[in-house]
Amino acid sequence: MARRAGVALSSVSRVLNDHPDVSENMRSRVLEAIAELGYEPNLLAASLRRGSSRMIGFIVPDLRNPLFGSIVTAAQDGLSQQGYAAVITTSSSDADRDADMARLLRHRQVDALIVSLADQTREDLIEELRRFRGPIVLLDREVDGLEDASIVETDHGSGMEQATRHLLSLGHERVALLTGSLQVRPSAQRVQAFREAYRQSALPYPEDLVRPVGFAPEFGERSTVELLRRPSPPTALIVGSNQLLTGVLRSLRRLGIRPGVDIAVVSCDDVPLSELHNPPITVIDRDVTEIGSSAARLALERLNNPDTPPRRVVLPTTLVLRDSTHSPHG
Amino acid sequence: MARRAGVALSSVSRVLNDHPDVSENMRSRVLEAIAELGYEPNLLAASLRRGSSRMIGFIVPDLRNPLFGSIVTAAQDGLSQQGYAAVITTSSSDADRDADMARLLRHRQVDALIVSLADQTREDLIEELRRFRGPIVLLDREVDGLEDASIVETDHGSGMEQATRHLLSLGHERVALLTGSLQVRPSAQRVQAFREAYRQSALPYPEDLVRPVGFAPEFGERSTVELLRRPSPPTALIVGSNQLLTGVLRSLRRLGIRPGVDIAVVSCDDVPLSELHNPPITVIDRDVTEIGSSAARLALERLNNPDTPPRRVVLPTTLVLRDSTHSPHG
Repeated sequence: MARRAGVALSSVSRVLNDHPDVSENMRSRVLEAIAELGYEPNLLAASLRRGSSRMIGFIVPDLRNPLFGSIVTAAQDGLSQQGYAAVITTSSSDADRDADMARLLRHRQVDALIVSLADQTREDLIEELRRFRGPIVLLDREVDGLEDASIVETDHGSGMEQATRHLLSLGHERVALLTGSLQVRPSAQRVQAFREAYRQSALPYPEDLVRPVGFAPEFGERSTVELLRRPSPPTALIVGSNQLLTGVLRSLRRLGIRPGVDIAVVSCDDVPLSELHNPPITVIDRDVTEIGSSAARLALERLNNPDTPPRRVVLPTTLVLRDSTHSPHG
Repeated sequence: MARRAGVALSSVSRVLNDHPDVSENMRSRVLEAIAELGYEPNLLAASLRRGSSRMIGFIVPDLRNPLFGSIVTAAQDGLSQQGYAAVITTSSSDADRDADMARLLRHRQVDALIVSLADQTREDLIEELRRFRGPIVLLDREVDGLEDASIVETDHGSGMEQATRHLLSLGHERVALLTGSLQVRPSAQRVQAFREAYRQSALPYPEDLVRPVGFAPEFGERSTVELLRRPSPPTALIVGSNQLLTGVLRSLRRLGIRPGVDIAVVSCDDVPLSELHNPPITVIDRDVTEIGSSAARLALERLNNPDTPPRRVVLPTTLVLRDSTHSPHG
């Protein structure tokens, strides 16, 4: 090909590797020769030399949750505008697999990592992430010992406090909280805000109704049955994710208990199920698209300028009132 | 490291590359030396030499659709049992991006491709897939000129015929069909089956109510309004995906038209929204987990034995009757 372009082999290499020291004339001669010959540069080898794969690696806990699909899609839109491709892996909420995927993506030499960890306290995983040389963006996780990572956080506390206070003001005294494991930031923050709202109300804190059990539908299904069979059952439920909500609504239907009539229900994150349920379900909402595009932005700003320090972006939650929250005796 | 293990450098290389001609004793000496030195083999370079990355590349049109998340998750379960990792990319239903992603995954040397294409008729994309050297599994697409690919198909026709016949037997004469573009197999099959059910009924085929418009919620939202404003509106809707259903239900709510009372609604694929809607929505269902695990199986059987010819697996659809389908006048 160098012969066809009438240039030195080293010039071809410089063009293929985006070397700054290449004249426009040289560039076009080489690129024409490439096109004529149907030559396809081995991108993998090229990226090994150049140290950039133009790929951004994602690790998400559950792709069956449409929330993560929306976050990834929004991030990808931002990344592809600058020529990066999103490559997604999932841990299936298994912290061991988180570490495997982080290793895999590092070995495949992605340029940055955007990750939502199954467990933010696992030493081996943190160790694995520390080995990664590019920018890391954590989604809603606080990881000790990973000070160089940027973070896109949600302020789960404010929405949870609003929701709890709203239910208490309607006259509910026994509110149950179902959420994920306390090993991740959103759940820990929610339980704290829930307790704080009770503390301010002077009502007794219903310790027995707090279930930081996990985000999967099965947990919602089981906890709902168990909570409603208690001698003193809750009159309202706050449900920490759309996946949990699926399980909760399944159990309520089976028990013949109607949301918004027999029991008040608040969910977290607005999805078609909460929006289009009859009655529509009150949610603690956040801008999921903004989470994805912020993550892309934080990754890109450090890719474009490695001297940029890591940043933390905090996005708000807001309470969207709908018909699933009513007074306990009305 | 070869010195530390007291073996020849070529032996280290043989161990790292899983060469069959290595004694157990040699293997353990080398691996111990690796562990002691904290040496980490460059997996990428190793896979370049060995020709296997242990990665399976996915291309899906929309990760916001929980259906694809479920398919990918089921496939990943099957793949990881044999030590393969799923690496997922998305085209955002853009056929240009399909080709980009196929190229990216090929260059990153994934061992097999599992793909759900945005457009099964695009020449450049088919060309790109033809360049890929490992097994390809197509999800529900029929691609001319790609005879060497395995296929996991859904028999959309039987479920659609059942659904249409059911609505006609209830007394509906004007049934509308909303589905994706005819450039993909599911939509083409559905329209054909819908027409066939009408042909058998001797009722006039409602050509004016067939909308192969796309799978996104916006299409469902717009088509519903447009269909219901016609001089002779449909009394029943068949909706070709859970994403479309979201848009359809939004419009029905805005128009004050109740599913199962004012209009019969059938959807495709069971998701929490259809299951937990009030009234629950009749669906043409299929086993989504089985789609994912079949895809993994078809990829693995050709990875394990390259002489295996491509296979086609056809999975059934069944009609699940619920309260959203009623007679038009009662």
